[in-house]
Amino acid sequence: MDELLIVTTGGTIDKVYFDDKSDYQVGEPQIGRILQELGVAFRFTVIPILRKDSLHVTAEDRELMRATIAAQPTRHVLVTHGTDTMVETAKVLATIPDKTIVLTGALNPARFRGSDAEFNIGTAVGAVQSQPGGVWIAMNGRVWDPARVRKNVAANRFEALG
Amino acid sequence: MDELLIVTTGGTIDKVYFDDKSDYQVGEPQIGRILQELGVAFRFTVIPILRKDSLHVTAEDRELMRATIAAQPTRHVLVTHGTDTMVETAKVLATIPDKTIVLTGALNPARFRGSDAEFNIGTAVGAVQSQPGGVWIAMNGRVWDPARVRKNVAANRFEALG
Amino acid sequence: MDELLIVTTGGTIDKVYFDDKSDYQVGEPQIGRILQELGVAFRFTVIPILRKDSLHVTAEDRELMRATIAAQPTRHVLVTHGTDTMVETAKVLATIPDKTIVLTGALNPARFRGSDAEFNIGTAVGAVQSQPGGVWIAMNGRVWDPARVRKNVAANRFEALG
Amino acid sequence: MDELLIVTTGGTIDKVYFDDKSDYQVGEPQIGRILQELGVAFRFTVIPILRKDSLHVTAEDRELMRATIAAQPTRHVLVTHGTDTMVETAKVLATIPDKTIVLTGALNPARFRGSDAEFNIGTAVGAVQSQPGGVWIAMNGRVWDPARVRKNVAANRFEALG
Repeated sequence: MDELLIVTTGGTIDKVYFDDKSDYQVGEPQIGRILQELGVAFRFTVIPILRKDSLHVTAEDRELMRATIAAQPTRHVLVTHGTDTMVETAKVLATIPDKTIVLTGALNPARFRGSDAEFNIGTAVGAVQSQPGGVWIAMNGRVWDPARVRKNVAANRFEALG
Repeated sequence: MDELLIVTTGGTIDKVYFDDKSDYQVGEPQIGRILQELGVAFRFTVIPILRKDSLHVTAEDRELMRATIAAQPTRHVLVTHGTDTMVETAKVLATIPDKTIVLTGALNPARFRGSDAEFNIGTAVGAVQSQPGGVWIAMNGRVWDPARVRKNVAANRFEALG
Repeated sequence: MDELLIVTTGGTIDKVYFDDKSDYQVGEPQIGRILQELGVAFRFTVIPILRKDSLHVTAEDRELMRATIAAQPTRHVLVTHGTDTMVETAKVLATIPDKTIVLTGALNPARFRGSDAEFNIGTAVGAVQSQPGGVWIAMNGRVWDPARVRKNVAANRFEALG
Repeated sequence: MDELLIVTTGGTIDKVYFDDKSDYQVGEPQIGRILQELGVAFRFTVIPILRKDSLHVTAEDRELMRATIAAQPTRHVLVTHGTDTMVETAKVLATIPDKTIVLTGALNPARFRGSDAEFNIGTAVGAVQSQPGGVWIAMNGRVWDPARVRKNVAANRFEALG
């Protein structure tokens, strides 16, 4: 993998804190800064498509993601996405041929101490260049087939479908 | 200073993140854990009175803080508090005699990378044992007289009253 | 991947700081604590074989690693190792059949702010369950074939063999 | 306190890690970057005099510190210093009249997660503007009179002289 396309859509990974009076908001995508500071040995391009909580991602948003990714020649694609509807988006992206696409995100914002963001991005980066093709979800240290995983909302973690 | 009384009331310093669907909430007081991990050379007791955004702190809440602190024999007192009405609370506590009381808090939650929480607690701890008495506010690296400081909400920082 | 065998051998990733008078030393393996705090959705066992700077790893040490890993039934194996001779060790482990083995480590100790440790472990975890078999090196965000990578010591990074 | 003079002399607080082959070394002073990122509400000037482990600080070095500080008009002075001989240096600086001088440092490098550096700098900043004059040591959350404190090397902490 010499080049990675990164599509950002918002979610917890990019949440920031402004002040006492405002809630948490989805801020600038963090992944570009993170990969740059880590000194990765591949080129990457970040396309910031959306900045949404994934509960608010619509069918139109998913079609936009699909079309944007399909239009790029890059074979390896990483998508950062909110966790609540990540599986749903993964299923829409599964119609894109001839690419390896990995979705990831975070259960705690990247700007938090102890966030899972860097680790999850690492898992996604390791998977995207090792999987022969298809769409995958990298969360909780696993590379999941979207057809066989769900987010357990109460436990706040991804787990195999029963 | 051999002993420090710590009264916690909530505010940004203790804000935590639960999940995509909920907002930021004021969580467990962080200061006890922080001081313990740092290995401070004084005894301290934490009294968690409130767990509120300071915009919601009422006159009754302030009277409760005042009475609680006045009832304790400890001379040195540190209060963690939301920043928006910290000055107002400080003025109420100024009626307590024979103590040095320092209020502090944070502009970014203690659990964030780069938070000002540890530094502010340090400033408060340094001030509380160095000031001869009275009520002080430790924010932005300054030990302020409550009568001469305000929070500049737009700039999100404390500054001298003009 | 339901189970991961982790073999730790020392290196920068585990370096700790004691005090003014002592140098940096290789301490307790960090990877178990890191994976536990992150809440990964797979079982793992940590076998701490060595605690060495990789410059001091001998042929006997490598044979010990090879024999230890070969003796375990687990298919997926992650090895933490110092970076200076990681490629050399990878070539020795390449004789083990029927496993996917990924070596990783860090250019900055895991206990440093901004360390690459968590990200590298993520990359290794993503690769180990995605690669069909063989031995790989996960460093600088790439999953390298040990025959085609070297550490550029002056630049302190891994790069493709010219 | 509108202005703070900061004199840096090295010590653990500024230690950095280069690579597998080198030991820990005393690097660039960290305090200026830290105060800037925290957004402190006072002006400060950093004079980097030395970059030494405090075990190697000589009588000549201490005379240089004394003369440098005495020559500056600033009333409030913060000195970062290695912990092993911090008390000895404090006693030399005690001959400087008409200033409040606080020495601080760290038991763990500022670049480590969980370092005491930011907290200690906070304690020093709180003390330097609250003490009426003289020389003080801010370590382990206490503002110590140099005549009544020692570093317990075995326990790696400062404690009251028995």
